[in-house]
Amino acid sequence: MADRITAQLAFLTEADKLKSTLRATTLCDASRRENSGEHSWHIALYAMVMAEHAVRPVQIDRVIKMLLIHDIVEIDAGDAPIHGDHDPAAQEAIEQAAADRIFGLLPADQADAFRALWDEFEAAQTDDAVFAKSIDRVQPVIANLETGGGTWPTYNVTPAQLETRVGAKVTRGAPAIWAALKARIDRWFLQNT
Amino acid sequence: MADRITAQLAFLTEADKLKSTLRATTLCDASRRENSGEHSWHIALYAMVMAEHAVRPVQIDRVIKMLLIHDIVEIDAGDAPIHGDHDPAAQEAIEQAAADRIFGLLPADQADAFRALWDEFEAAQTDDAVFAKSIDRVQPVIANLETGGGTWPTYNVTPAQLETRVGAKVTRGAPAIWAALKARIDRWFLQNT
Repeated sequence: MADRITAQLAFLTEADKLKSTLRATTLCDASRRENSGEHSWHIALYAMVMAEHAVRPVQIDRVIKMLLIHDIVEIDAGDAPIHGDHDPAAQEAIEQAAADRIFGLLPADQADAFRALWDEFEAAQTDDAVFAKSIDRVQPVIANLETGGGTWPTYNVTPAQLETRVGAKVTRGAPAIWAALKARIDRWFLQNT
Repeated sequence: MADRITAQLAFLTEADKLKSTLRATTLCDASRRENSGEHSWHIALYAMVMAEHAVRPVQIDRVIKMLLIHDIVEIDAGDAPIHGDHDPAAQEAIEQAAADRIFGLLPADQADAFRALWDEFEAAQTDDAVFAKSIDRVQPVIANLETGGGTWPTYNVTPAQLETRVGAKVTRGAPAIWAALKARIDRWFLQNT
């Protein structure tokens, strides 16, 4: 028992570092950039509130667990902004190594279970993972809308790019949410570009 | 449907402010004070990892949901440090009003469900709430141990106070975790006071 607790606390203490991984998006009051720890809390809350809009029924407890661990590899890999120009293959290799290292801090049975949940999220094939991925894309859109466009002007994002990079993914898991966002997004681009 | 999404996003956008509520404890690298948003993520992860140590079996999905919303009233009420000298009755009145206002942003059915879950956490009577409260007390201890005592010297905390204010609460829900922490805490006080 004591050995298990030691290993679990080693993982949880390592996880603390996710609070120092900065994302491209800011808080809704634009006061500073968001970190991946608080982002993970916020989207778990998004999923808890918006589960009813999943395109197919989900097990919300599994979705929430996925979202709590979905970004933990960023402790080693950093955040790759969706509108940035990183190399996806190189990023994936770094993230796989990070998953090996970080989940490997846990007792073996938990390391396997957490890794399987993270792999499921990354593969985005099950209903739970598809919805989780959708929700992960919604929150930054809100942050951008709340901050006068946020990172869109920075990255010269067009409505068409937003539709491909974000809209298609949100629609796959939660079409009603994208429909609601689309109206606000269209209004923003009409007024600001 | 559109009205529900509008209300849900109003709640979720308000929740963003929890990322600006600062706590007494710092990150494990002592680089800055922790905020209540990232703290909520971290303890939800703690619960997910350490559920097996609950003194009685818990429904971990309910525990995680409780922890995701447990601090949201701090948007209005601020964080009351466990070793500080706030007035508990005044703090509770402010938190009740905050719960009315913030959960009240949600569609009525969800406002009731979230409020009931928060009330259950606050009352600390059910097995799920007792374990959730225990876990909420564990993470700051680790942050203090990782940062050379952290807030303990600031508040002149004694081992006896720590036992009463923290140990009793952790032990109530997760005695094995407190036993593991106690050894590290005793060693710290022996070496530093």
